[in-house]
Amino acid sequence: MSLTRERDGLCDAPVGIFDSGVGGLTVAREIMRQIPNEKIVYFGDTARVPYGSKSKETITKFSRQIVHFLQEQKVKAIVAACNTASAYALDEIEKEIDIPLIGVVKPGAKAAAEATRNGRIGVIGTEGTIGSHIYSTYIKEIDPDITVMGKACPLFVPLVEEGLWQDPVTDEIANRYLGSLIDSDIDTLILGCTHYPLIRSTVGKIMGESVTLVNPAYETARELKALLADENLLNEKGPELGGNRYRFYVSDMADKFQTFANSILKYGILSAKKINIEDY
Amino acid sequence: MSLTRERDGLCDAPVGIFDSGVGGLTVAREIMRQIPNEKIVYFGDTARVPYGSKSKETITKFSRQIVHFLQEQKVKAIVAACNTASAYALDEIEKEIDIPLIGVVKPGAKAAAEATRNGRIGVIGTEGTIGSHIYSTYIKEIDPDITVMGKACPLFVPLVEEGLWQDPVTDEIANRYLGSLIDSDIDTLILGCTHYPLIRSTVGKIMGESVTLVNPAYETARELKALLADENLLNEKGPELGGNRYRFYVSDMADKFQTFANSILKYGILSAKKINIEDY
Repeated sequence: MSLTRERDGLCDAPVGIFDSGVGGLTVAREIMRQIPNEKIVYFGDTARVPYGSKSKETITKFSRQIVHFLQEQKVKAIVAACNTASAYALDEIEKEIDIPLIGVVKPGAKAAAEATRNGRIGVIGTEGTIGSHIYSTYIKEIDPDITVMGKACPLFVPLVEEGLWQDPVTDEIANRYLGSLIDSDIDTLILGCTHYPLIRSTVGKIMGESVTLVNPAYETARELKALLADENLLNEKGPELGGNRYRFYVSDMADKFQTFANSILKYGILSAKKINIEDY
Repeated sequence: MSLTRERDGLCDAPVGIFDSGVGGLTVAREIMRQIPNEKIVYFGDTARVPYGSKSKETITKFSRQIVHFLQEQKVKAIVAACNTASAYALDEIEKEIDIPLIGVVKPGAKAAAEATRNGRIGVIGTEGTIGSHIYSTYIKEIDPDITVMGKACPLFVPLVEEGLWQDPVTDEIANRYLGSLIDSDIDTLILGCTHYPLIRSTVGKIMGESVTLVNPAYETARELKALLADENLLNEKGPELGGNRYRFYVSDMADKFQTFANSILKYGILSAKKINIEDY
């Protein structure tokens, strides 16, 4: 009886999600869609964004502080909804904690390895993600015969954050970045940065219909659902009316975060609270 | 005698310069040009860059840590070579220290107020700088009749850092950002972000010859020279051969900083050293 009650309490605990800023909201959105009963605590590191051009050591330190903060929020599992943090920090930090920690890279790599027919996969992402060759490493663990071509696209994040989701400038920059990938005859392309689903239509138009776009946000939500089911941790209770189901924390600029979040998420964000992440 | 010796030691001390990253190197470059005898300790906060979209509270905290670090390096004066830090943090921090601290905003505002003939000045910068209305505040202290029009240009920094200093995409984005300023009939435009001198020719082409461009980096180096002269702190000694005249510190990605610095500065950078700025 007491075990069941404990388990019930754990099932009802929130899922922690973190990102360098707003990008991880595309992952939160997928989790809200696919497992709508789950409570969420989201942290966006808006004081230290972006992560994509910073070092492994720095990103690991930042991620560790955030994981400590989320553990204090009594989350039952943590999703690193940031490709750079997934690439750099996860292996080290998952050894240090006793709750499940998943990133966006492995689910994305797995889906791409399943999708490719000609064994040629492209990855686009930040300098950090591409420089780490992390997608390639995971894909080659699944099938060493697959060829993986990476391309860093540093301007995509600022273009998305400036709201130019459909714009001739974004088309032009995307044409430049993606040209070499088109020439490489890939049939699958991983959107290896959480901002990129927001310019999915631009990327899709340039790559053409024959190239399958893999969205790691979608795959990560699927993996989280399977993981929670395996561990009997799925929240069976529907949301309570008026309950505080989704909580958002940031390290800076709570108002701006809220505005951007409301342009991405189906549910309005009531508020985002600023905390001092360096204290964790 | 001992006073003279003390003064000599102080004159020989370096000038501290800091910025959120590489942008402040345009200020360092001007200081190297105008007062070549001065030693320099430069700090770029590459782990927490950019500052332009972060809050006053966060920027003040970051700036205070950097000032502490520079004081430990025994600098004789500090230049905040970052418009956002100058706008947000300077007034508070200069009360806390006993060496001169100057920013880039006041010298830029003064030069613009002197340059305008029709009393209409434009300012371009990051969201933080423009949102603070700091240039307007300083200009109106000099002449309340001057009209100041600000325009945030968030994509300019990533475009410069991507190396697109002369590029059709930069032209297109600049056309969009500057359109409203052209319509406002300004005759003077302040390049209110340290990255912008690197796209000065693009901005100048769009604004036309009748608009005077004010580069606060240049004005700041002039002001620093005058300040050091006033306080008898100018270094009269020429550089020693093989001496370690310019030292560079960063909070992350020392290699990348070095590459960018070498594309901006006349003198090659031997090395940039990474330090943990949160410890200060």
